[in-house]
Amino acid sequence: MVKEARVIALDLGPGPSLDPDIAAYFAKCQEKLGFIPNVLKAYAFDTSKLKAFIAMADELMLGDSGLSKLEREMIAVAVSCANHCHYCLTAHGAAVRQRAADPEMGELIAQNYRAAALPPRQKAMLDFAVRLTEAPDKIEEMDREALRRAGFKDRDIWDIAAVAAFYNMSNRLAAAADLKPNREYHSMVRDMVHGKADAGSNAQIPVRAASTSRAAEAPHGRRGRRRAV
Amino acid sequence: MVKEARVIALDLGPGPSLDPDIAAYFAKCQEKLGFIPNVLKAYAFDTSKLKAFIAMADELMLGDSGLSKLEREMIAVAVSCANHCHYCLTAHGAAVRQRAADPEMGELIAQNYRAAALPPRQKAMLDFAVRLTEAPDKIEEMDREALRRAGFKDRDIWDIAAVAAFYNMSNRLAAAADLKPNREYHSMVRDMVHGKADAGSNAQIPVRAASTSRAAEAPHGRRGRRRAV
Amino acid sequence: MVKEARVIALDLGPGPSLDPDIAAYFAKCQEKLGFIPNVLKAYAFDTSKLKAFIAMADELMLGDSGLSKLEREMIAVAVSCANHCHYCLTAHGAAVRQRAADPEMGELIAQNYRAAALPPRQKAMLDFAVRLTEAPDKIEEMDREALRRAGFKDRDIWDIAAVAAFYNMSNRLAAAADLKPNREYHSMVRDMVHGKADAGSNAQIPVRAASTSRAAEAPHGRRGRRRAV
Amino acid sequence: MVKEARVIALDLGPGPSLDPDIAAYFAKCQEKLGFIPNVLKAYAFDTSKLKAFIAMADELMLGDSGLSKLEREMIAVAVSCANHCHYCLTAHGAAVRQRAADPEMGELIAQNYRAAALPPRQKAMLDFAVRLTEAPDKIEEMDREALRRAGFKDRDIWDIAAVAAFYNMSNRLAAAADLKPNREYHSMVRDMVHGKADAGSNAQIPVRAASTSRAAEAPHGRRGRRRAV
Amino acid sequence: MVKEARVIALDLGPGPSLDPDIAAYFAKCQEKLGFIPNVLKAYAFDTSKLKAFIAMADELMLGDSGLSKLEREMIAVAVSCANHCHYCLTAHGAAVRQRAADPEMGELIAQNYRAAALPPRQKAMLDFAVRLTEAPDKIEEMDREALRRAGFKDRDIWDIAAVAAFYNMSNRLAAAADLKPNREYHSMVRDMVHGKADAGSNAQIPVRAASTSRAAEAPHGRRGRRRAV
Amino acid sequence: MVKEARVIALDLGPGPSLDPDIAAYFAKCQEKLGFIPNVLKAYAFDTSKLKAFIAMADELMLGDSGLSKLEREMIAVAVSCANHCHYCLTAHGAAVRQRAADPEMGELIAQNYRAAALPPRQKAMLDFAVRLTEAPDKIEEMDREALRRAGFKDRDIWDIAAVAAFYNMSNRLAAAADLKPNREYHSMVRDMVHGKADAGSNAQIPVRAASTSRAAEAPHGRRGRRRAV
Repeated sequence: MVKEARVIALDLGPGPSLDPDIAAYFAKCQEKLGFIPNVLKAYAFDTSKLKAFIAMADELMLGDSGLSKLEREMIAVAVSCANHCHYCLTAHGAAVRQRAADPEMGELIAQNYRAAALPPRQKAMLDFAVRLTEAPDKIEEMDREALRRAGFKDRDIWDIAAVAAFYNMSNRLAAAADLKPNREYHSMVRDMVHGKADAGSNAQIPVRAASTSRAAEAPHGRRGRRRAV
Repeated sequence: MVKEARVIALDLGPGPSLDPDIAAYFAKCQEKLGFIPNVLKAYAFDTSKLKAFIAMADELMLGDSGLSKLEREMIAVAVSCANHCHYCLTAHGAAVRQRAADPEMGELIAQNYRAAALPPRQKAMLDFAVRLTEAPDKIEEMDREALRRAGFKDRDIWDIAAVAAFYNMSNRLAAAADLKPNREYHSMVRDMVHGKADAGSNAQIPVRAASTSRAAEAPHGRRGRRRAV
Repeated sequence: MVKEARVIALDLGPGPSLDPDIAAYFAKCQEKLGFIPNVLKAYAFDTSKLKAFIAMADELMLGDSGLSKLEREMIAVAVSCANHCHYCLTAHGAAVRQRAADPEMGELIAQNYRAAALPPRQKAMLDFAVRLTEAPDKIEEMDREALRRAGFKDRDIWDIAAVAAFYNMSNRLAAAADLKPNREYHSMVRDMVHGKADAGSNAQIPVRAASTSRAAEAPHGRRGRRRAV
Repeated sequence: MVKEARVIALDLGPGPSLDPDIAAYFAKCQEKLGFIPNVLKAYAFDTSKLKAFIAMADELMLGDSGLSKLEREMIAVAVSCANHCHYCLTAHGAAVRQRAADPEMGELIAQNYRAAALPPRQKAMLDFAVRLTEAPDKIEEMDREALRRAGFKDRDIWDIAAVAAFYNMSNRLAAAADLKPNREYHSMVRDMVHGKADAGSNAQIPVRAASTSRAAEAPHGRRGRRRAV
Repeated sequence: MVKEARVIALDLGPGPSLDPDIAAYFAKCQEKLGFIPNVLKAYAFDTSKLKAFIAMADELMLGDSGLSKLEREMIAVAVSCANHCHYCLTAHGAAVRQRAADPEMGELIAQNYRAAALPPRQKAMLDFAVRLTEAPDKIEEMDREALRRAGFKDRDIWDIAAVAAFYNMSNRLAAAADLKPNREYHSMVRDMVHGKADAGSNAQIPVRAASTSRAAEAPHGRRGRRRAV
Repeated sequence: MVKEARVIALDLGPGPSLDPDIAAYFAKCQEKLGFIPNVLKAYAFDTSKLKAFIAMADELMLGDSGLSKLEREMIAVAVSCANHCHYCLTAHGAAVRQRAADPEMGELIAQNYRAAALPPRQKAMLDFAVRLTEAPDKIEEMDREALRRAGFKDRDIWDIAAVAAFYNMSNRLAAAADLKPNREYHSMVRDMVHGKADAGSNAQIPVRAASTSRAAEAPHGRRGRRRAV
């Protein structure tokens, strides 16, 4: 039995028994992270949907990209701030704190990235992501041009857009289902050592399980990638 | 060469040669629909991303659900209306016209579903989907309760949310990339016969290609399902 | 009996018998267009109001102007898109398709004019019209200056504003009354011949009736003008 | 020479010499009101447009209706408040002060009608008018039902909608042209006598000129009606 | 007994007897202004809260500043316009009319400052104040830079922000409590003499009472300052 | 020298030397909290303004009230969330974590109070505070009635409104000045012991200094109250 009653506000039934890929993936989460992220438990009522979600999330957040993994997490959090998404701010706020090794950065992006005094590249990146979130119908060529001027290639622009778009999806699914974050996220990577997070907290975000079908399709070194969700 | 320069406003490079699954899928689209939907061409620069997108879209729009396929298309269009997404209004507007066999219905949902005099079930469904689009942070238990009162089960509520959320993603990716719809959509299913669309136009939306990996995993009759994107 | 029960959601009573001007105008509509636009039927409960509405609409949409008739219809549709007006998007969407002889153009403006890759003149025109729609209190001299830089004279700016303002009125009256468009609009000018609409469909929008009092006041060639509403 | 340079921010040229109807109408304004309302001067560059505007405004604001003339002015002002229209708040604010014989009422509606402790009928009327202004696409049957419950007939609902819609037009034309109100409006009907305005100030709003063509068409007692604009 | 039942929509009880400072302050208001501003009566239920409010308001509106007292009142009114605050528009609208000796200016700022053709300094000042009101989370360095370019020092920027922020507080407290303005404000400073207000009306805004504790703490010439609230 | 350059983005000059009251207050902050809250350093450029701010903040957040101090902090944070205020979310988020002895509660309110499953009383309280923040002009008697139904007395409603209004002020001043929170807030009260915060962290929020003038005016037991800012 994977899903606990309080993870979401919807009763989706008992769900199937975990298939081997997912069981291995969940075991790895438990081993490395100490818990199974609640978004995965929520999706576990349907194995196909869960696998599709993991495939897309991993592809976006961990695949090759001109954006660093930290930058992608920053987009996730800035979008989730605009949408006031409790789940994603908690889970991805922790990820920004961890990847930046900087607890303050995680708070800044989760509260208002405009206060973060970011370098121009990242400022332009989040300006685009938030504008795409708040007024997608108003995006024009000049918005893309602003990203190019900030040094992004067109392939990077796709990735910025794809990550921002993905969290506009996730935020809404979390809101609709009242998805609760695992409580462990709240205390992760909170202590600063000489202005930087304790290096020991790096161990808290688990590697991605090797046994999922997608990883099996692309074994070229991706086994060691970190989990996206 | 799959992607034409004008499909999107981003230059994502030539892309890989199509892998056999995707080549077969595209050939099937061409045969049945007469064209390859531009969203697929846009994604073809990266095979993994394309497959992840297809897997999620098909799962949502064609998988088992308490929502009919028409209802899911109605959600796609109502969300895209709120976001003023040219691509999705064109492609999924055609899908509503086709699945409803009613050109007027497609226009109504694309312009303002509140003018459509829908039955209470579908009105509640679109009210929730549009509220989730416009103010995801304001969704509360009473919104879920309104869906339950309209006859939806919790599993259906998840599906309404998941489809609405997915098009909030797609709309934003289309806006960011300035994705152009195939011109063929504009004239599809426009003529009414006795208040209903010409049955002949049903043939214009292709069956889903049998050779994609996901279909191969789930061969239990899904080969004949219609395409979602 | 002119008005059918389902044209609007308000019961305005039987209305007066048509006066000769209006009767002739309606007969001309029927002959040329094949139907009487529902907005006219809605207004027919009061002859004075109907005449005032026709006079203003014709003056704006068909009178002398530095804006082409197509441009004025584009403004009508872009404004109606911002206001999600089912009636006006349907009726004036058909008018853009017809006047542009381009079904795709009609859809583009009805869904999101920013996706239409318009020439700078028309882009500036619709930017102003939509800003005037969404935030009239924020219009400043720099907005007028942008139009002048795009080549518009002050008289043209008045016309852009007047047309945009008129459809902000019409959209709201249609919304308040739940005005239903004639079903015939949906299938008008949908087929493309070599990327252009079938010339034959030009005949579907009727000439303006010669017998209205206003036309009688201004017989200098306006009899042949097309109908505005 | 009717129009002074500073009435609007657009240079519309010298305009035609006034035709006899308009000249008589303007003379009457001057005699009764002490000035010609600037909106009329702005429109005077084109006699047909001016007449169409006067015809519609008079029909709405002075024609037979289940709404009192004060109620129609209240709608004009509440809509203009939502749109922050300097011209209409000034001109129609004066009209509410005059028709209500209550300077405070004019301010209340111009600033925020919700603070006015209105009777339920007028509260419902303005709630509808402002909702129609702010979110026309969200009007539904329940909004019309709220008006019916407040005692309005369907014909009244049309009039509420038509007046609200008309000022959504006028507000936008005034904003686009930067139309300046006549300075005289500011000091009109400001003094209270025992909580009511000085009766002497009633004389400040002129009767409608008898010689306009529309009045000539409908001479059944309308000569004495007050001006709408 | 200071507070009358109708000042606010909340029943806050009888309140304490006035302490000597407040009693003297109220007596001075009555003598100079002819009435005690209702915001003070509303606060009189708690002497400490009343004194804290007076101290902050006086410091902001009457203390030393690079902004003139008129400019500070203009900010108060422009912010109150954006928030549609009946109380503050009435009380501070009167203050702008009085301090500018220009009834028209008061109306302009209360209705829409963008129509006021202000000098660049004051235009920039109100642009900032209203943006801070409507979208505080979007303020960035470029907004501060615009003020510096318009000639403001950093200390002035603080004062602009502090006044705008204070009326965002006051507007909300007035809205929550349904605070009614004294009726006397409505007719103050309405008559123009040669385009300027009658000098006699200057006397209507009272000097600040000398006996409040704060004035006692800072007797360096501030006794004669005008009242802020 | 109190103020460091990086506390705000405005250069307000060196400021006066601290007067004895303020010096004692700051020393107390340093002793108890380990730092002087940056909002106080920002205000230190002007002693009168600083004292007025402290007086109002303390009165609201620490004075007698039907609301608990935790409830007042919850309002501060919910308002600051709606306004995306980095400073207040950081400083008052810490205060909610501390007063609730629950790190998770602080995050919930800072991210989206609607996800917090609050008891009806507190849910109603924050609904009102956020509505007052987002749409002050739409507050009506029914909003006050909802609070009364939730068990609040009119005096409590005033306090809810006053606290919400105060943070609408503070948020805007912080945004305008780009006020940075002390870094120490980020790590405060993050660890949970059996689902509750470590009691040891209670010591981190200092008692209010006894020597401020306001405390001296009101020595009746208030010396021991905790600091509000």
